[in-house]
Amino acid sequence: MRIVDIIRKKRDGVELTREELAQIIEGATRGEVPDYQAAAFLMAVYFQPLTEGELADLTELYVRSGAIIDLSDLPAAKVDKHSTGGVGDKTSLIVAPIVAACGFIVPMISGRGLGHTGGTLDKLEAIPGFNTRLSVEQFKETLRRTGAAMIGQTEELVPADRKIYALRDATSTVESIPLIAASIMSKKLAEGVDALLLDVKVGSGAFMKKQTEARRLAQAMAAIGRRMGKRVVALLTDMDQPLGNAVGNALEVMEALETLKGKGPTDLTELSLELASRMLVLADPNRGMEGAREQAQAALLDGSALHKFREIIEAQGGDTGVIDSYERFPTASDFRAIPTARAGYVTRIDAEAVGLAAMVLGGGRERLDSPIDAAVGIVVERKVGEAVQDGDTLCTLYYNDAGRLDEAIERVEEAFVISRAAPEPRPLIYEIIQ
Amino acid sequence: MRIVDIIRKKRDGVELTREELAQIIEGATRGEVPDYQAAAFLMAVYFQPLTEGELADLTELYVRSGAIIDLSDLPAAKVDKHSTGGVGDKTSLIVAPIVAACGFIVPMISGRGLGHTGGTLDKLEAIPGFNTRLSVEQFKETLRRTGAAMIGQTEELVPADRKIYALRDATSTVESIPLIAASIMSKKLAEGVDALLLDVKVGSGAFMKKQTEARRLAQAMAAIGRRMGKRVVALLTDMDQPLGNAVGNALEVMEALETLKGKGPTDLTELSLELASRMLVLADPNRGMEGAREQAQAALLDGSALHKFREIIEAQGGDTGVIDSYERFPTASDFRAIPTARAGYVTRIDAEAVGLAAMVLGGGRERLDSPIDAAVGIVVERKVGEAVQDGDTLCTLYYNDAGRLDEAIERVEEAFVISRAAPEPRPLIYEIIQ
Repeated sequence: MRIVDIIRKKRDGVELTREELAQIIEGATRGEVPDYQAAAFLMAVYFQPLTEGELADLTELYVRSGAIIDLSDLPAAKVDKHSTGGVGDKTSLIVAPIVAACGFIVPMISGRGLGHTGGTLDKLEAIPGFNTRLSVEQFKETLRRTGAAMIGQTEELVPADRKIYALRDATSTVESIPLIAASIMSKKLAEGVDALLLDVKVGSGAFMKKQTEARRLAQAMAAIGRRMGKRVVALLTDMDQPLGNAVGNALEVMEALETLKGKGPTDLTELSLELASRMLVLADPNRGMEGAREQAQAALLDGSALHKFREIIEAQGGDTGVIDSYERFPTASDFRAIPTARAGYVTRIDAEAVGLAAMVLGGGRERLDSPIDAAVGIVVERKVGEAVQDGDTLCTLYYNDAGRLDEAIERVEEAFVISRAAPEPRPLIYEIIQ
Repeated sequence: MRIVDIIRKKRDGVELTREELAQIIEGATRGEVPDYQAAAFLMAVYFQPLTEGELADLTELYVRSGAIIDLSDLPAAKVDKHSTGGVGDKTSLIVAPIVAACGFIVPMISGRGLGHTGGTLDKLEAIPGFNTRLSVEQFKETLRRTGAAMIGQTEELVPADRKIYALRDATSTVESIPLIAASIMSKKLAEGVDALLLDVKVGSGAFMKKQTEARRLAQAMAAIGRRMGKRVVALLTDMDQPLGNAVGNALEVMEALETLKGKGPTDLTELSLELASRMLVLADPNRGMEGAREQAQAALLDGSALHKFREIIEAQGGDTGVIDSYERFPTASDFRAIPTARAGYVTRIDAEAVGLAAMVLGGGRERLDSPIDAAVGIVVERKVGEAVQDGDTLCTLYYNDAGRLDEAIERVEEAFVISRAAPEPRPLIYEIIQ
């Protein structure tokens, strides 16, 4: 079929065959289908969403466009976790060590932060010397030795997704749930996992502001996983306030280390244990959640997860000295405490505003090529539901450059809502989709 | 605003400002906005149709992208007619001479046929020597001398429309009523007309198969004309069966000549007189339809319209000898009469099928660059409503190459529907929109 007729078919809401999808996606990746036809196709898909079958085909086309990491010679089950991104979400640094400490393989390929959201790679790189740019061979070798490795996207994996994503970014077709689902799932499936836990964030600091949208994305991703023969579970979790207290790369790694030491904030510890236990069940479907939870908790309490993180840092060239000496992290030269304007209860902390404030301080990226400062960030001192007295500090800003401090202060001041009455408690986990 | 944000705005159904439209259209025409962004924008417009204001702005941007023919030094009113295209529609060859014979200026820039539809330029070029490629200066000079001239699109006019049309053609975004309206109207407005009659065809042989769609297109074009300060009237006319009897370039010019001699088929004569009278009223709004109709009829009866056509042919280098000696036209080497399979009444002649049969014989274009044979075509011997006896000829195929004759025969045989009962008569003109 001619490309123009494939575009027309999708435009008219007719389901495409696998061959038709292949013609347009493989053609675009090889540069044989011109970008303008691929762009028109993507906008047609925005308005005429892909069916479950098309979505599985598209994801497989993405995966097959490049190398697939073959981990079949590693004896244990391979399980990964993917978060759709948020503010203060450092759970990867906690759950990967827990699950690897429990004997499973966690082949984690992560991304960088953009806008108000953080990225696991940026956090890891706050550890002096930590190398996230391993080759596929080095990645496999590290997995073999330590059970977990955390690297960035490599050139060999899913070139079709990279090509299509660049076009989507330039043509306002990013916000399409099937296209998002295929993009995420293809990257994870190319890692060679057996099972995958999806943490779909919902709320002001998330990409999906509404639970209905988040649910649709979670369902689309779970359906792809099923069709590709992988065990997949998705959780919809709260991202309406920052997760934990720290927002900013070095600050977040310190908080992850505290959590691995059993001294983390309640919400972060609780979500990390939930994620880790579900990964354990996904890795070994014969066990129940209760036993998995006990095992995950034990890995935190007996120090084996912390020990595993030390091994990971060491294997990837990082300074393990940071674990016991936080001053070895890059540190900000100055800080500013933000007092509450009134007494009452914290009823809302707009996660997006806090994330943007951290970005403004230099801790995040405005554009993909912006430099970032690992030292700066924000520590939220009072979370939603807590009481504050006059003069109490709501949060502390850590900064190196006072240039945009006022803008950051304005953003965090607006982020906090203080009311007389205590708010209804919000759940950490909204839904489980499998 | 960034182009990606303009695309997003339109994608979300928000009205664009004139400046935003200019950024994308002018940028695309100059090659500064990449084709993939323009293509995504066009698909967004397909799903989120332009408002009346956006449509007027877009049309004006098309017009202003190139030269506008200045006919202000010609003393009479300038009026043109545009048909959305059909099968056997040779009215331009009849109405332009009538209106010019009545003293008005008809600056007619026409197109070529594609698929089942014919084009005025192809018909004119069936006249040996007729030159449709005049420069703008030659066009003006011919208009000054004869009152009418009929040429093809020139490079100087509406380059933005040409650029956007080429992209639409490659991205399945042709079938967007606002984009069609802007494309048609910009070409006509660049001709420098004061008034314009639109003949929007409806039925199997038309681009618009349904009256509701045709009405939307007519209303969109009339609205653009109004906003640009031009007098515009649109007729919705029947294209469910071929117009007149002849389909094919030389055959149609002969039929137009017969009509100018007062011996044309009833439907063609009637529609031509209706179109010509409405053009006369548009050219001089102070007069009524009745007087206009009498004047148009007189121009046919007294030979002045035929004389004017002779002048046009002569001015554009054509052989005026064809007027009295049809054998000077290219003629087909063979013909095949198609008899009826049964007696009864002709209740339907699928115009699209007849047009495609003529194309298959070589009289039309499958692709924009296909060569055409001016001599071949089809003469419909029985029109809808006529009775046929066993053995009567329904139509005659004139051909030079027997290679695809069987395919053409199959198509015309399927085009005719013969029933026992006579059909309800269909009107020639469905609606008048102004």
